[in-house]
Amino acid sequence: MNPSTWLLLQRTVRFGETDAAGVMHFQQLLRWCHEAYEESLERFGLEAAAIFPTPGHSPEVALPIVHCSADFRRPLVCGDPLAIALEPKRLDPGCFEVHYRFSSQEQDVATGLTRHLAIRTDGRSRCELPAGINRWLEASSLKVGIQPLT
Amino acid sequence: MNPSTWLLLQRTVRFGETDAAGVMHFQQLLRWCHEAYEESLERFGLEAAAIFPTPGHSPEVALPIVHCSADFRRPLVCGDPLAIALEPKRLDPGCFEVHYRFSSQEQDVATGLTRHLAIRTDGRSRCELPAGINRWLEASSLKVGIQPLT
Amino acid sequence: MNPSTWLLLQRTVRFGETDAAGVMHFQQLLRWCHEAYEESLERFGLEAAAIFPTPGHSPEVALPIVHCSADFRRPLVCGDPLAIALEPKRLDPGCFEVHYRFSSQEQDVATGLTRHLAIRTDGRSRCELPAGINRWLEASSLKVGIQPLT
Amino acid sequence: MNPSTWLLLQRTVRFGETDAAGVMHFQQLLRWCHEAYEESLERFGLEAAAIFPTPGHSPEVALPIVHCSADFRRPLVCGDPLAIALEPKRLDPGCFEVHYRFSSQEQDVATGLTRHLAIRTDGRSRCELPAGINRWLEASSLKVGIQPLT
Repeated sequence: MNPSTWLLLQRTVRFGETDAAGVMHFQQLLRWCHEAYEESLERFGLEAAAIFPTPGHSPEVALPIVHCSADFRRPLVCGDPLAIALEPKRLDPGCFEVHYRFSSQEQDVATGLTRHLAIRTDGRSRCELPAGINRWLEASSLKVGIQPLT
Repeated sequence: MNPSTWLLLQRTVRFGETDAAGVMHFQQLLRWCHEAYEESLERFGLEAAAIFPTPGHSPEVALPIVHCSADFRRPLVCGDPLAIALEPKRLDPGCFEVHYRFSSQEQDVATGLTRHLAIRTDGRSRCELPAGINRWLEASSLKVGIQPLT
Repeated sequence: MNPSTWLLLQRTVRFGETDAAGVMHFQQLLRWCHEAYEESLERFGLEAAAIFPTPGHSPEVALPIVHCSADFRRPLVCGDPLAIALEPKRLDPGCFEVHYRFSSQEQDVATGLTRHLAIRTDGRSRCELPAGINRWLEASSLKVGIQPLT
Repeated sequence: MNPSTWLLLQRTVRFGETDAAGVMHFQQLLRWCHEAYEESLERFGLEAAAIFPTPGHSPEVALPIVHCSADFRRPLVCGDPLAIALEPKRLDPGCFEVHYRFSSQEQDVATGLTRHLAIRTDGRSRCELPAGINRWLEASSLKVGIQPLT
């Protein structure tokens, strides 16, 4: 399977994501990052319920975000198409990061970063990443066929 | 205790709540309604953890919203001060509504409504409202000293 | 062109749209409604900039929401796939509504409604709907080929 | 005037800000940062309309965020009280940062950062910070009477 199928995503800037300056309100970008991360796992073949808690079922391991950041280069307006390129990277056996590069009409517009720590749902002590996340990280590191966004 | 202490609340329109038309984006009003409901319970003396689930502890009864609506009369801009008047009302032993009237600088600007159904967390069957909610509904229905917003 | 291409949309419930009860937080549904409305216009062929303001350019007519509502029948959890069926309807020459039916795995889960009023950007007096919106409303009313969600 | 009146703020974690893991969803923290920044300007005495655009009126200078970050140390649940300490700092004549430290019940829970660049609304070229922002930055740097959060 070609990693670009789960590492290159798309969305469109919506009206409620802009503010009175007429452009995307900064905080929306972090939401887009997390939604891109979820969509990436889903396209890779991991079920949401295996990673995220649902009523009556908690996976044994949670992956809370311990750090995030974003850089904004160009303003985005309602209707702008976005290409999102994800670069997931394991930092250690219990921690990974995802870098997100956002471009619109061939121009870099923003980058984002989320860092996730594996903890046991029962007790919140640190632990190893779940097997599914490890498979996604390894397959993503191959990056076959992903074109750089320039 | 005077019901106005928990039924008359205040907030300010923030920049991220506006959209590119320069005014409050409609969907924020429903968020304000729910936050006003939570603040009202808190001011009345009910702890959040008695009503809302937290990790490792679910109250026996959940109060999901089964219906909501809002009407918008005047545009709101960043910085506008808001007065919020709540009118909670029991519909039957397992259901209540909250009406919200928003005004800014003595003018009615919007109204909102949320309808909540009591269900057992364990099984989702309908049940009676929790005792704390019943006390809040009863105390709120006295409305001593609440001035009409005109 | 078959109306189902712009009146039947899809999305997935994301983690940030759930709350501590483990299910979709009610207010997200209204955001989904507006985003579905925008996506519908886009698929129909109307550019966002023709309908929504961008910096330095305001369409002559704005379409603020004057009323919205939603009904919730079943809880939605992270990862649930959603089908969204839109039914736009003109109420008078300066006003229209959109009804939204949300289903997941063949079950009705929620409905939403937004009512929009045409006003002149310059002065906020009522006016006629823009030509593009009228074309979308007329084409949508034909409903050729749209299957009822049952 | 004591800087703590505009640099030490408070809010409460609300239900819609949690996710299905039962704790505050990371992205909300950035929203809290921006709302704290707005509240700080307001308490200092700057009108929102002097800094943020409203329909028919754009200040000559906009202050878009070019970078933001956040670090999360402890989970927050619905109802948790938050103390927010702001540290605004000018980086150069056309740029400033705000650091935000969040604590709850005497424990550090998270930090945030927003970096703002002054640009002319007309043309988006870099320019000097508005006079009001400079007054706020200077008065804030005095930090008379602000207790460290420990």
